[in-house]
Amino acid sequence: MGFKRISSDVVYKGKIVTVYKDTVRYDDDGEEAEREYVGHPGSVAMVAHDGERVFLVNQPREPVGEQQVLELPAGKLDVEEEDPLATAKRELAEEIGKSAEDWELLKGPYYASVGFTNEKVWIYLATGLEDAEAEADENERIEIETVPLADLDALIERVVDAKTLIGLELLRTRLQAKG
Amino acid sequence: MGFKRISSDVVYKGKIVTVYKDTVRYDDDGEEAEREYVGHPGSVAMVAHDGERVFLVNQPREPVGEQQVLELPAGKLDVEEEDPLATAKRELAEEIGKSAEDWELLKGPYYASVGFTNEKVWIYLATGLEDAEAEADENERIEIETVPLADLDALIERVVDAKTLIGLELLRTRLQAKG
Repeated sequence: MGFKRISSDVVYKGKIVTVYKDTVRYDDDGEEAEREYVGHPGSVAMVAHDGERVFLVNQPREPVGEQQVLELPAGKLDVEEEDPLATAKRELAEEIGKSAEDWELLKGPYYASVGFTNEKVWIYLATGLEDAEAEADENERIEIETVPLADLDALIERVVDAKTLIGLELLRTRLQAKG
Repeated sequence: MGFKRISSDVVYKGKIVTVYKDTVRYDDDGEEAEREYVGHPGSVAMVAHDGERVFLVNQPREPVGEQQVLELPAGKLDVEEEDPLATAKRELAEEIGKSAEDWELLKGPYYASVGFTNEKVWIYLATGLEDAEAEADENERIEIETVPLADLDALIERVVDAKTLIGLELLRTRLQAKG
């Protein structure tokens, strides 16, 4: 059931989006096929909580036409080879003004939408939060929202963003296990 | 914090991927910005189980270079306006050869990757499974795998596909509540 990549071409290169068209050959029957997909540098998202509240952000999301989407603090890897944990630390400071003493990979990398993009996502649990030293605001349109951990079930109901669903569901499982 | 879409242009149109470049204007300061993103017709995924086992599929995923990815049965909406439940019923038959008596929207629509694509995903719980009437195989490279519900925790550890993580985590929560 395996395949080999025979060729890979960039068919569109924009500011954020790069579209590739690859030719692959399947091992079993030798069939060749073209596969079009979107290259992405990868993302991180942080489940940051202080034992009582989880820190989220609200921001306009133009691609989906939503005025406000409630999400985990998150960001893209600056370059494909950037260490995801380094990205996570940088983005946590930039988005919610916090640093964290304890970092744990909660899940990842996983694939955001395996049928059409190579985007990988790493989700970190960030605890032992402290105010970060002053960081330039990456985006003034981001608003911080904190939600009590006691309200996690209702929060998950509200969420419409995939990485946020995954991170908060894993947090819920984690907190239940601790009882 | 709102914005309005001023213009929207297709800058690349491929077989699967359409890239848009929109101009938006923010209500608060009148600033205009260009936003590039990928148009997608939307997806469905099905958490199909018979009370003892959940039905998954393994398939090569060329965009991410993986020979096999373990996923919920899933599929794209044929057209943007297709009823997601109709898509789910069709894809369940095509991918695992089953029909379901009971359908419930487990989550959705949510956004797969809100920063760069408008892809929406609907996840359905499909129970009361029966063998479907003969359906043409959509893709002969799909292999069905069933996993006992008792092994759900270990299964979730293995999964690297976002929609599958979300669906199986919600199933776990559901089964615990009934527990």
